[in-house]
Amino acid sequence: MFNIWENIRKTAPLIHHITNYVTVNDVANITLACGASPVMADDVEEAAEITQLAAGLCLNIGTLNQRTIPAMLSAARKAKELNHPVVLDPVGAGATKLRTQTALDILQTDSIICVRGNISEIKTLIHGTGNTKGVDAAAVDCVTEENLDHSCEFAKQAAQKLNTIVAITGAIDLVADTKQCYIIRNGHPEMSRITGTGCQCSALVAACIAASPAKPLEAAAVAVMAMGLAGEIAHKHLLPLEGNATYRNRIIDAICHLTAEELTKGAKYEIR
Amino acid sequence: MFNIWENIRKTAPLIHHITNYVTVNDVANITLACGASPVMADDVEEAAEITQLAAGLCLNIGTLNQRTIPAMLSAARKAKELNHPVVLDPVGAGATKLRTQTALDILQTDSIICVRGNISEIKTLIHGTGNTKGVDAAAVDCVTEENLDHSCEFAKQAAQKLNTIVAITGAIDLVADTKQCYIIRNGHPEMSRITGTGCQCSALVAACIAASPAKPLEAAAVAVMAMGLAGEIAHKHLLPLEGNATYRNRIIDAICHLTAEELTKGAKYEIR
Amino acid sequence: MFNIWENIRKTAPLIHHITNYVTVNDVANITLACGASPVMADDVEEAAEITQLAAGLCLNIGTLNQRTIPAMLSAARKAKELNHPVVLDPVGAGATKLRTQTALDILQTDSIICVRGNISEIKTLIHGTGNTKGVDAAAVDCVTEENLDHSCEFAKQAAQKLNTIVAITGAIDLVADTKQCYIIRNGHPEMSRITGTGCQCSALVAACIAASPAKPLEAAAVAVMAMGLAGEIAHKHLLPLEGNATYRNRIIDAICHLTAEELTKGAKYEIR
Repeated sequence: MFNIWENIRKTAPLIHHITNYVTVNDVANITLACGASPVMADDVEEAAEITQLAAGLCLNIGTLNQRTIPAMLSAARKAKELNHPVVLDPVGAGATKLRTQTALDILQTDSIICVRGNISEIKTLIHGTGNTKGVDAAAVDCVTEENLDHSCEFAKQAAQKLNTIVAITGAIDLVADTKQCYIIRNGHPEMSRITGTGCQCSALVAACIAASPAKPLEAAAVAVMAMGLAGEIAHKHLLPLEGNATYRNRIIDAICHLTAEELTKGAKYEIR
Repeated sequence: MFNIWENIRKTAPLIHHITNYVTVNDVANITLACGASPVMADDVEEAAEITQLAAGLCLNIGTLNQRTIPAMLSAARKAKELNHPVVLDPVGAGATKLRTQTALDILQTDSIICVRGNISEIKTLIHGTGNTKGVDAAAVDCVTEENLDHSCEFAKQAAQKLNTIVAITGAIDLVADTKQCYIIRNGHPEMSRITGTGCQCSALVAACIAASPAKPLEAAAVAVMAMGLAGEIAHKHLLPLEGNATYRNRIIDAICHLTAEELTKGAKYEIR
Repeated sequence: MFNIWENIRKTAPLIHHITNYVTVNDVANITLACGASPVMADDVEEAAEITQLAAGLCLNIGTLNQRTIPAMLSAARKAKELNHPVVLDPVGAGATKLRTQTALDILQTDSIICVRGNISEIKTLIHGTGNTKGVDAAAVDCVTEENLDHSCEFAKQAAQKLNTIVAITGAIDLVADTKQCYIIRNGHPEMSRITGTGCQCSALVAACIAASPAKPLEAAAVAVMAMGLAGEIAHKHLLPLEGNATYRNRIIDAICHLTAEELTKGAKYEIR
């Protein structure tokens, strides 16, 4: 399975990102770190044209606005037409009507291969409302060892209802289609103290799927494992005085050096 | 007083930032570093709704535009209605009519609990014009040991005129209401070679006040001391070849580890 | 020639940037690192006013949009009127009609002193179409030791046709006016794995020319050498586990410490 990781470096896919301005630099650098190439363009006048040049599209609604929403929809429609993989990161869905509605509108384009979000965001997309606390998941929603069977079932149902692969990240990550659910236990709790680890994970998902489009479920799972393992490796090398800013850099650095071999050894997952 | 610093980690307030795209990532990471949680949203369609979810609002006009100005005003009005603390960072007020007018318009909403700026920006808000050099204070305006009595008096008058707490940061920082002025001598001159240390300070002010809303003057002063002390600690650990990019990361790292105890020992202030 | 580098620290020119939101933070920090001062402002209501305060203008179309294009044109016209040096970074020209047309429209203002781009972008501006792969140069276009004479000739012709200095960066950098072409062999291949080294180079070009406006060709060449040498120095100090995120910081750090003396020793160039 982990040749998927090598495929990124072999094919160096160009990924079109329409994303938020908070974490965009880290998203671009992690895209380069994994071996893909990023291009950011969010004006409706050129969005479809850029998508046409790219091998994949990553839509992130973290700082959506009236100007970029039409660009996201235009790019999604073009990607659908060209059969390019599109990843949706519904940042903050459930927090406002605009976010929830925009995420649903993007899903309506029927272009999305994978939705990567926290559990509250995904629940919002399924149930119409959620417990999102700003851009973070609500504690009440979280995937735990106790509710794991139920959570896997939810993930598969969400995949069915959304007609996409669903990647739900948190302390335990779930990546599911309608039939299989990867349960992934990589990562480190301190990752939640860095802004944009979720956005970066979505960027890896887009790169992995664009490089291995025939195996989107495995590719999404590999991306989530890679992000988690990078978080572990980076944390191991953190010095006592270093905090979340340096940790951010070291995670991207770890992706830079991560090999398929290390991933094979370090990935902690099961399939249900 | 320094239990104010612990209060952020105890209450983890969600802070809504409408801020500039230059330093937004550092603002998000320092907000997480101090123990609060950031959410960035700047479209008028959702700004008030996000503010409603949050415990505090931080408005920074660093890259204001026709689209985000109405969002700032909408969020400020909602925060006023809900009695949420709002911090204004009037970046570059005095440099252009748009910046000066927008800062004054935001003040007119009567929602602002604290204005954090450099001396030229604050003078602009009081006198209508200033000597701002781009986004930096003019040398002629600066607070010095020589003009300190006069400067404290100015800070208190500014607090009265603006009907807010005023935090004037520079080589010497002043944080004043109409009656008291904290004179703070933390910080390091090299901090001015990093973009956004002012923006980050405003973010800490917002987090501190949101966590201790009953003591806004003390909370603003603690935030300014914390930023300065983090600048000192981070500079001490800088290696000979490291420069402003690494220094930026180490300041956020230092905030990550800063305790109320260290702040009690390291804070250098007097009250006049 | 390398007193040009010292001139930045002596004169601390204020540089107005209208730039993309992907790399803007690095652009601001490298501007500070070299001794200049950045101000970012992209709304048409204030762009000309900010330009008037500044000593130079740097236009970067990396994430251009309908709102910022008029601001770029307005700032360019004001700079032309005031005879301020303007640098254009035509990011992704050739990738979309909007990018190519906007770059040409900006050139039409007759305000540009230097265009800094990759070879595919510059070819697009000359021939109307190019082989840009997203925001990267196409391999087929690249300057190599084999096509160097031809490439220098092209650079001089481009300078004539665009009526600007042309700085073409890549594995080998060319900086040319109509008569002379600097061939620069500084830099490190890993720089291409960091987002925004091109944008940062453009920022250094703007700072160098603003500080030494009488010698724009030499200033542009010095900026390109400084960026390349910083890439070499930073790479030398990279630890085994460090990757592109840390490398990014160390390049800016290296600019922070780079002296005219080191530049004199480290610059690898010839003139044809």
